[in-house]
Amino acid sequence: MAAPNRQMALMDKARACATFNSRELTYLLYGGKEATERREAAFTRIEDALGVSDTRKLPLAYAGQDREGQYLQGLAFGKALMDDEIKHRHGIFDYHSHRFALIIASPFGHNPLMFGPTLRLQTSPEQRDYWVPLLEAGKIIGTYAQTELGHGTFLRGLETTATLDLDTDEFVVHSPTLTSTKYWPSALGFTASHAVVMANLVIRGKNHGMQPFMVQLRNLDDYSLMPGIETGDIGVKMGLNSTDMGYAVFTNVRIPRTNLLMGNVQVLQDGTFIKGKHQKMAYATMMYTRDRIVHNVGFQLAQAVVIATRYSTVREQGIGFSPTATAEWPIMAYKSQHYRLLSLMAQAYALFFAAAECTTIYNQLTAQLAAGDLSLLPYVHATTAALKAYSTQVASDGAEDARKCCGGLGYSILSGLPSIVGDLAPMPTLEGENHVMYQQTARYFMKAITRIKAGLPVDDGVSYLATTPTSSSSSSASTAHCPASSPSDFLNPETQLQIFRHRATRLAFYAHHLLLTTTTTTTPTQQQPSPPTILYAQAWNTHMLPLIHAARAHIELFVLSAFISSTTPSSPQSSPQSSPSPQSPSPSPSSPPTYPPSLLTLRTLFALTLIENPLSPSSIHFFEDGYVSLEQVYSIRATVGDLLKELGRDVLALGDGWGFSDACLGSAIGCWDGDVYARVMGWTRGLRGGEEEGGGKGGGKGESGGDMGKRGFEKVIGPMLRGRL
Amino acid sequence: MAAPNRQMALMDKARACATFNSRELTYLLYGGKEATERREAAFTRIEDALGVSDTRKLPLAYAGQDREGQYLQGLAFGKALMDDEIKHRHGIFDYHSHRFALIIASPFGHNPLMFGPTLRLQTSPEQRDYWVPLLEAGKIIGTYAQTELGHGTFLRGLETTATLDLDTDEFVVHSPTLTSTKYWPSALGFTASHAVVMANLVIRGKNHGMQPFMVQLRNLDDYSLMPGIETGDIGVKMGLNSTDMGYAVFTNVRIPRTNLLMGNVQVLQDGTFIKGKHQKMAYATMMYTRDRIVHNVGFQLAQAVVIATRYSTVREQGIGFSPTATAEWPIMAYKSQHYRLLSLMAQAYALFFAAAECTTIYNQLTAQLAAGDLSLLPYVHATTAALKAYSTQVASDGAEDARKCCGGLGYSILSGLPSIVGDLAPMPTLEGENHVMYQQTARYFMKAITRIKAGLPVDDGVSYLATTPTSSSSSSASTAHCPASSPSDFLNPETQLQIFRHRATRLAFYAHHLLLTTTTTTTPTQQQPSPPTILYAQAWNTHMLPLIHAARAHIELFVLSAFISSTTPSSPQSSPQSSPSPQSPSPSPSSPPTYPPSLLTLRTLFALTLIENPLSPSSIHFFEDGYVSLEQVYSIRATVGDLLKELGRDVLALGDGWGFSDACLGSAIGCWDGDVYARVMGWTRGLRGGEEEGGGKGGGKGESGGDMGKRGFEKVIGPMLRGRL
Repeated sequence: MAAPNRQMALMDKARACATFNSRELTYLLYGGKEATERREAAFTRIEDALGVSDTRKLPLAYAGQDREGQYLQGLAFGKALMDDEIKHRHGIFDYHSHRFALIIASPFGHNPLMFGPTLRLQTSPEQRDYWVPLLEAGKIIGTYAQTELGHGTFLRGLETTATLDLDTDEFVVHSPTLTSTKYWPSALGFTASHAVVMANLVIRGKNHGMQPFMVQLRNLDDYSLMPGIETGDIGVKMGLNSTDMGYAVFTNVRIPRTNLLMGNVQVLQDGTFIKGKHQKMAYATMMYTRDRIVHNVGFQLAQAVVIATRYSTVREQGIGFSPTATAEWPIMAYKSQHYRLLSLMAQAYALFFAAAECTTIYNQLTAQLAAGDLSLLPYVHATTAALKAYSTQVASDGAEDARKCCGGLGYSILSGLPSIVGDLAPMPTLEGENHVMYQQTARYFMKAITRIKAGLPVDDGVSYLATTPTSSSSSSASTAHCPASSPSDFLNPETQLQIFRHRATRLAFYAHHLLLTTTTTTTPTQQQPSPPTILYAQAWNTHMLPLIHAARAHIELFVLSAFISSTTPSSPQSSPQSSPSPQSPSPSPSSPPTYPPSLLTLRTLFALTLIENPLSPSSIHFFEDGYVSLEQVYSIRATVGDLLKELGRDVLALGDGWGFSDACLGSAIGCWDGDVYARVMGWTRGLRGGEEEGGGKGGGKGESGGDMGKRGFEKVIGPMLRGRL
Repeated sequence: MAAPNRQMALMDKARACATFNSRELTYLLYGGKEATERREAAFTRIEDALGVSDTRKLPLAYAGQDREGQYLQGLAFGKALMDDEIKHRHGIFDYHSHRFALIIASPFGHNPLMFGPTLRLQTSPEQRDYWVPLLEAGKIIGTYAQTELGHGTFLRGLETTATLDLDTDEFVVHSPTLTSTKYWPSALGFTASHAVVMANLVIRGKNHGMQPFMVQLRNLDDYSLMPGIETGDIGVKMGLNSTDMGYAVFTNVRIPRTNLLMGNVQVLQDGTFIKGKHQKMAYATMMYTRDRIVHNVGFQLAQAVVIATRYSTVREQGIGFSPTATAEWPIMAYKSQHYRLLSLMAQAYALFFAAAECTTIYNQLTAQLAAGDLSLLPYVHATTAALKAYSTQVASDGAEDARKCCGGLGYSILSGLPSIVGDLAPMPTLEGENHVMYQQTARYFMKAITRIKAGLPVDDGVSYLATTPTSSSSSSASTAHCPASSPSDFLNPETQLQIFRHRATRLAFYAHHLLLTTTTTTTPTQQQPSPPTILYAQAWNTHMLPLIHAARAHIELFVLSAFISSTTPSSPQSSPQSSPSPQSPSPSPSSPPTYPPSLLTLRTLFALTLIENPLSPSSIHFFEDGYVSLEQVYSIRATVGDLLKELGRDVLALGDGWGFSDACLGSAIGCWDGDVYARVMGWTRGLRGGEEEGGGKGGGKGESGGDMGKRGFEKVIGPMLRGRL
């Protein structure tokens, strides 16, 4: 280790101020000391195997590799992760890499993320017995091919066909158009041996809808493509470049009839099509993936925030407009920086606890589905959809803001931040585009309000819509006002929830009112209770924005509720009536563990900054109806100022609590020790020769380094200058 | 050209709906038909020279090059741009590349952007006569080395020294610490022969502050580094990878005394230091660069929006929740998409006109400075600082939103959007970090309010602060209300300006009030008119957020005013009293040209969405004091709905009006003809062999393409699978 220097001393000093032991927080987050250590041991094994443990050395990934180098490195780390899971029997890297990219950053990542769950959830027992052992032994490499060049979130638009040939008892998988080319799946380019291909099942000219088919892509001996299949890499993206996201064109590819995955439907040899009883099970894979994404983006945001807070602790810049100051300030001392980073830290923790709540309700659902009970499905589907949209938006915007907090160095790949931002960037799109996701939640919401208006019961998770006093359906100004009268009132979780419930309820009823008004005033048959669907579709489109706002307000309430209920030990104030988690279908039986007080302060900061921060999406909705007054927002802002002061001592500890290894952050500016500048210059100088040195490990070709200037002079600069003499 | 297909037909049909000729709009934007054609001819020459005119062919830049390939390509296009400017005597590429990246994306870009202006503005006449001809003939290649590893926006923190050696009549340029390493300048790695180095001028132990020194980095014959100089590339960034952003360490590098650029200061042979009369001229270079950045980011946002609107016209997805629909909808038909893209289009035009206004006042300033009149300096400095912050934030966030509007393909480099987003990403940081910029404006603002309270006059640009009736200094709820009573009132530019003036005035007075209260209540000498600076600095930090909000509100008013005044033909309603441009120091004498009515509708959309969009930064401030009521915001939202409908026919024409060539967009999904899918698949397939074909032109080494899968199998997948049999 380098000798202590000014930055390391600043870091030590700041860390010593903490009011709690960050290690204890780590144990709480990851399920205890033992589980934490098991987890950390896995990271350490991987980091050692990949040669990235020594953070004084430039990581190969930052050496400016070409496309092939990126891919070969992805294969190397993907194999290391898979081998470790098989050898040590764990699932730590089932949905994220050793650097917390979604696991499809590994060319082998679809095995655990979507290919595997599909083989487990959507197969017949015989199919399961055949395929799952092959998968678990790593003998086949899978991908999940759904999206097409011309078709994404809207599944019914997919064009690929699988037509039953009764003569040969085969399905013929075919890409009938340019737009039906499968495009995007990770590992589809070169890596996958098999793909679950979503295609229109056609029997005797009749289309039975989208179904999953197992298609072998490559000969396992020499990996040559099977007849009729063309695949390739789709090139460079903003992130996830370590995998071969690819395309595939199928030209009358023949597979056995029994390669239709028959967990939900069946096709007999004579062409009989049988709908399964548990058709909705197909949703389970989708919700599983969304749940995993929700989990992972919270970690990614946390990584960005940890890097930015550490850097801001040791980066000194300016003297705060004080002409008499003699030393520069660490940038964390500036209010705007402090405010941004702590708000983001609060959001990262909020996503963590919301994700845990999401998994809880997902598990409840799967248990009920197994028993044939579908009643929770609409609520869980609506919740995972909106939470996927919300969490990916918050994480993606937040990581970019954390990156900007690091100024110039945040723009350099050496900071680790561009990778996090780039790997997060597709999340608002994949597995359901966010604006579509919000609308699915809004649809569920509108149905709930129709039921409420008819006096019918609704799911517990949205019952607050019926009980919140502000549920006026009128479009005119509401007369409700936030009852908080002193700054301390805003510290009360119940007051916070009340403010969020008011907003969500008002926006939901208003959107419902708009829909109803538009459809009933444009149709002559005013008495008809359910308006013609075509008019409804028009009205929906006209009022799409208020509908999205309503869904977003609901899920923000869900997130706050989850944060509160997961961190509030049982106390007199959490009586059933003022239960802080009105969304969860059944209250969690066990009382949450005792978190450090600073985490609860951070939770308050989360709630209050969502209200008062002019940059918080939709904060306008707390104010536009006059519910929160100017006096109150001044009071909230003063309170936020106090909270920030209070949290100042614990900024680092709250980051350290996530328990990220230096290597997993991959950041020259975000390591534990604070030795930013020596590491940046070490890595920068490493660019010259780093490729040769690291090339053997990751497989990069790299010969660019130190000679690129020489070749630039020989090829362009020299001739140019000589030509001008 | 490919035969017309469905997408191309959709594009033709949508384009045919336009209410105006987009070509006429292009002429208006670029100063007439002739100027437009001259400009387009330059782009065509460059595109031909670089082999990118045929947009059926994969651009080399997207072929997954390694770091050296990226740099060699940068040299190639940089040389083409420079040669064209010299040969055809124009300055079209003085601040942006042929793809509208800031010109430092070219390794030769500092010549026109900062190196050149410094040689013109900060030299003595003799120095100018010596250096400028060398520069103009392209015989020296310059960079501007200011930022250091440990120091950015805060100039006084820079550590590099230039110490006068009286014995040899030389300056000794030195990097005394690790943190003083020059870091970031484009071309510093390998390309630049000379650098203007900002360093502390030290004479006989006395520091005379930061001054510019000309340092020769390399021997012009073989380009070997001069003694005592170490430089290198700093590696991959989120964007701008075609240049060798670099670092430099100086170890006692000797330069002649006369290499101090002596436009503002002088050092005589005996060590006498003479301050110049026009010291503030140093600001001129800085303001020039900021003005250029403001101009350019508007174009970059426009590029992203043009790509996204074209793609959204031909991309069909879903059936809008209508179970009876038979065809999918183009995604532009969805209200949320339509709303986002038109809002962004409005912002791009707003930046265009605001940038033009910025140049106008910058030119007024330089004319006055030349005459020794410094009176405009504070206002222009404050305006360019906030406008730099505002425009880079709007453009960077907006381009990313436009990218997200394109879903999956927006994530692929083939869409052209990642490059735009990546090249924009550093703009909020460089040439003055945005949060610091806003505070500089806020400082000017607070001084103006102190003057207003003392009954003293202020600059015309902020005189509205004195005349807006809502200028209450109290912290309690304002009683002012927006006077608009009917939806049509909101169409009136004067109403719009009044709403923005109210917000800016309220926030400015409130921030001033906070500053004053904090400093006077914590100091015992309440009578003292100017509070002690140390307390003031503390108060400033405490209230930094309201101060930044005030500056932002002011500059948003400036932008709206500029948009209105630049597009409103003289009419009875624009009497001096209701002048739409209260900021511009003197009203522009010539009446603006007549723009298509749709552009004026778009301007209204700009004003109204800033108010009502829950995602608009700071929209909360229109509501928190009750100035805009719920009824009014419902009315504004209904009006926005009408405007969107009205603009539907012209979305493409408003984009076409920018006059971007297909090649400059570099997008498989954003070309004029709408042939998205064929181009995406053509480029994707081009990845296999494209490098060999294109390699000769740009100089990329490229051999990654089609064999990367083969090597992946040989190195990793094959052995892995065989090991598991």
